[in-house]
Amino acid sequence: MLGVEFPICAFSHCRDVVAAVTNAGGLGVLGAVAHSPERLQNELTWIEQQTGGKPFGVDLLLPSKYVGAESGGTDAGQARDLLPEEHRAFVDDLLARYGVTAPAAPPRRSGGGLNISPKGYEPLLEVAFAHDIRLIASALGAPPEDLVQRAHDRNVLVAALAGTTQHARRHAAAGVDLIVAQGTEAGGHTGEVATMVLVPEVVDAVAPVPVLAAGGIARGRQIAAAMALGAEGVWCGSVWLTTEEAETVPVVKEKFLAATSSDTVRSRSMTGKPARMLRTAWTDEWERPENPDPLGMPLQTALVTEPQIRINQAATHPDAQARQLATYFVGQVVGSLDRVRPTRSVVLDMVEEFIDTIGRLQRLVD
Amino acid sequence: MLGVEFPICAFSHCRDVVAAVTNAGGLGVLGAVAHSPERLQNELTWIEQQTGGKPFGVDLLLPSKYVGAESGGTDAGQARDLLPEEHRAFVDDLLARYGVTAPAAPPRRSGGGLNISPKGYEPLLEVAFAHDIRLIASALGAPPEDLVQRAHDRNVLVAALAGTTQHARRHAAAGVDLIVAQGTEAGGHTGEVATMVLVPEVVDAVAPVPVLAAGGIARGRQIAAAMALGAEGVWCGSVWLTTEEAETVPVVKEKFLAATSSDTVRSRSMTGKPARMLRTAWTDEWERPENPDPLGMPLQTALVTEPQIRINQAATHPDAQARQLATYFVGQVVGSLDRVRPTRSVVLDMVEEFIDTIGRLQRLVD
Repeated sequence: MLGVEFPICAFSHCRDVVAAVTNAGGLGVLGAVAHSPERLQNELTWIEQQTGGKPFGVDLLLPSKYVGAESGGTDAGQARDLLPEEHRAFVDDLLARYGVTAPAAPPRRSGGGLNISPKGYEPLLEVAFAHDIRLIASALGAPPEDLVQRAHDRNVLVAALAGTTQHARRHAAAGVDLIVAQGTEAGGHTGEVATMVLVPEVVDAVAPVPVLAAGGIARGRQIAAAMALGAEGVWCGSVWLTTEEAETVPVVKEKFLAATSSDTVRSRSMTGKPARMLRTAWTDEWERPENPDPLGMPLQTALVTEPQIRINQAATHPDAQARQLATYFVGQVVGSLDRVRPTRSVVLDMVEEFIDTIGRLQRLVD
Repeated sequence: MLGVEFPICAFSHCRDVVAAVTNAGGLGVLGAVAHSPERLQNELTWIEQQTGGKPFGVDLLLPSKYVGAESGGTDAGQARDLLPEEHRAFVDDLLARYGVTAPAAPPRRSGGGLNISPKGYEPLLEVAFAHDIRLIASALGAPPEDLVQRAHDRNVLVAALAGTTQHARRHAAAGVDLIVAQGTEAGGHTGEVATMVLVPEVVDAVAPVPVLAAGGIARGRQIAAAMALGAEGVWCGSVWLTTEEAETVPVVKEKFLAATSSDTVRSRSMTGKPARMLRTAWTDEWERPENPDPLGMPLQTALVTEPQIRINQAATHPDAQARQLATYFVGQVVGSLDRVRPTRSVVLDMVEEFIDTIGRLQRLVD
């Protein structure tokens, strides 16, 4: 269905990871929600050149319902004007306390906010559909009504992430081709039900729509477990963040390599919705009862996008206090990421361990 | 090693479930922490009569460190004297608001509190060791130092539950024979790391000590997944709570059959330590910021044991408000429990689906 050798979908914001996974026999999916249309255009062209016709995909946040959608939605610029003074003051104070005093240097690339309103994502969809993509994925809620038809008209498959069986049923009813059942152990936006419980439930609920398992999958044994649960393949994100190709901020990469599986937390501090990330001084500060609660989506993103850039820039100094704040989305598999490897090796090791595992299981019942 | 046909350990407080699982080819483990020595004596004798030499086990909470252990520990009676007035008043008010006015009727059986101090569990250990048990399990922390030796002297295996790899390493160093790696999706006392992530980590950390997977396991596909992750078998608890044999309170059984996998919560409201249970008005009330935080262990148990009995007794009336409060420990697999079945059928269906799953996986790589 996906035209891949191995049923491994790799979500990454980094085009090099996407191309490397596709070239290794999996399916790279470019996370492009924070891209400008120009950047997406360049990256998809680059990926096409690198992969020579092999399949890849694009992931956007495409909520079917969006506050203010009639008027084109609220994007980062407008959202910034709506931020409560208490929240601005808390973030300013937080950065000052951790020695983050420099303003943000101009980013290397355009983008930064999340393009999750129709006004934000429509230009991205146009760029994506103008390229030879095999898959478009919607990471938040069921995809908008017309998207499935537009994708199918272009021979593009539609995937949608689901954290509950109820959401998965809604996606299937919307005509989605692939459901990504994502357990609570996953990095980024995630629900409360674990992969072990969610996957068989979703598989049974949406049959015959195929299901990919996400959350807790970084090695071949976990792929075999996902297939045992009834998934047709897997969707992995965190495992690529410590690859050679990954553009993960260096201090965050170091923290990921040192972290255990107990070092993540579901926090609303980055986007306003619960998302799993590394537990650091940043997430701890947002948890303290005396500090303000995170805002909703998209306000929290508007509040923290520039501060996050400033933290990561300040954290490049080896003894900067800002290093304590630095964090990023990652799943509980972070505990198993202990060295930097080329993306291609990660894929091939996954496949080898998967095949070994099936052999081991077979010997159990022989 | 366990002398069983199927590597399925069944934790249950109900002797009928224990005997039924053992007779079906698994290993029943009687949860006896709230038992009196006399009751444990009677139940183990009964189980021996029912199972005719087939293996079974006993589970106790055996913390290696315990506040006040020198003086024999604090048991329920003493703990009750230490309860803050604010907490007593909150629970009294809570019960009154939900129409629970009757005092507790005398329990059918002795027991009720948790025997987790040396003074509490030592008589239980003596009873257990006087019977033909195959396994003794410690559900909370590494077992006390001398326990492993005492068990091995009697040819009894020792199992210990672990929610992190760090705890698993400690258990292995203490000479435990079997580690139960229990993911966050499990019912009862549970950590934050999901089974999918925890099991391969623990397997690698404690090799060659064998690992059982717990949390999220109620059917054959999940057993196959656990084995794929590297476990030698599984440890299940929740799935037995809706069997014909289970002595689950009727209103709770009804709620379990109706619940989805999203309807549980990790709450300190029953024992003072985070334990997964059905989300009900009881857990919601303890979450409200205006209400007191739960106490620690064993004070919270001392606070809520009698109120829980009163709630369950009041909830026998079909339109009692108390039904809203009724809850019990259960894992996220509660979503898949939708009918009452004999324990034996549950075991045999698990095994059949497990074997089918291995066959399906094998065909994937052929």
